[in-house]
Amino acid sequence: MPADAAPSYLFLDELPSQGERATLTGDEAHYLARVCRARAGDFAHATDGRGGLARLRVLEVRPEVRIEVETFDRVEPARTAWVLCGPPEGERGDWLIEKLAELGVSVFQPVDCERGRWDAAAGRASRWQRLAVAALRQSRRRFLLELRTPVSLSEVGSGLPPEAARFLADPDGRPAGGWLPPAAGASIGLVGPSEGLSPGEKVSSRSQGFVPIRLSDGRLRAETAAVSWASWWTGGSST
Amino acid sequence: MPADAAPSYLFLDELPSQGERATLTGDEAHYLARVCRARAGDFAHATDGRGGLARLRVLEVRPEVRIEVETFDRVEPARTAWVLCGPPEGERGDWLIEKLAELGVSVFQPVDCERGRWDAAAGRASRWQRLAVAALRQSRRRFLLELRTPVSLSEVGSGLPPEAARFLADPDGRPAGGWLPPAAGASIGLVGPSEGLSPGEKVSSRSQGFVPIRLSDGRLRAETAAVSWASWWTGGSST
Repeated sequence: MPADAAPSYLFLDELPSQGERATLTGDEAHYLARVCRARAGDFAHATDGRGGLARLRVLEVRPEVRIEVETFDRVEPARTAWVLCGPPEGERGDWLIEKLAELGVSVFQPVDCERGRWDAAAGRASRWQRLAVAALRQSRRRFLLELRTPVSLSEVGSGLPPEAARFLADPDGRPAGGWLPPAAGASIGLVGPSEGLSPGEKVSSRSQGFVPIRLSDGRLRAETAAVSWASWWTGGSST
Repeated sequence: MPADAAPSYLFLDELPSQGERATLTGDEAHYLARVCRARAGDFAHATDGRGGLARLRVLEVRPEVRIEVETFDRVEPARTAWVLCGPPEGERGDWLIEKLAELGVSVFQPVDCERGRWDAAAGRASRWQRLAVAALRQSRRRFLLELRTPVSLSEVGSGLPPEAARFLADPDGRPAGGWLPPAAGASIGLVGPSEGLSPGEKVSSRSQGFVPIRLSDGRLRAETAAVSWASWWTGGSST
């Protein structure tokens, strides 16, 4: 691995402070030593997924992977996005998580709707976490996608940032292409399940301030609509 | 299946004329009789993927699936999109085709680049065609995604619509969120392979009129950038 090569981007939940040394274990040790083939003297970057970013120097890779933090800084997010999503069909949720994490979405909140409820798939939470971390590395982001457990659509409102701009993916809404995404603050995109929101849920969502936005001129699958909304939102990043 | 139920949307390469009767075979006969469980007297829609749309009446499903075309009309596309894309990693191309077809992209042109060439995967063309047809049905579109065979990036220019708006997915470009997609005519989105375009290819693309557009503030995989660009474009649909 050449020094500072692009792939050497780690996720370390507990980032040491500037000047500190640490021994890496598990996935990140494997990733740095085996996947990136780092050697003593190489540099790498690591994030804690909460805005912190460190520049690391590799001290040794055998017998243990040891690093020293050369520099460290932390930023607050300039803008955040929440995706509220009913269940897509089959295992399309895996793909959805990877793409939302790549696009820089902050929070994924599965919602149970009248026409579709998330099932309790064994192992999904840990699989999604791995996908989110891999996408964080891939896209070299400072913020890890936060994965929440499903709540009912009728109860989700109380947990949302109150000042956020709210959007409802809806074929009858205003075309996304005639509308610039919010340049700052929190935005929320709500997407129904594969069978769509019920008429009552649509009315209720609008009364909670969700503005209908039309993402395409065709019917989109749930996961496609969610990624399409996230694409629209992330295109507004100015930094 | 209730009459005119949403799922009964067929792709028939050769659509009969208004008033004509026809026997369906293969995938579409199976889809109508087995998946949609149509019965004699039910209605369905069918497109030829080239702008034609017919309303069909099911005459019988056994022993053969026979239909009659009640009404038929044809439209020209108000706007079209081409996606030129270097190879993504692994089998991510399958997912890419499904999503581009859902989002209403017109032409998918794989391009071989200095840092990535499409391999000749056996069976891919027919698999992609099936994915494009399934997405056409799903999104109830009139235009089927046209799948082309790979050409080199240096030679692709001559085959493109000359008057098209041209965009190059580029982290150094102007943010997509500050820019409304073209409301009419042809648009072309160029996305490099997973390793990116070479500096020479970037310069060459710009000299051919490709304007750099920044789709996100993080690094995107090739297939994510292509879908993100298509999401940006399709959001400009006004009809």
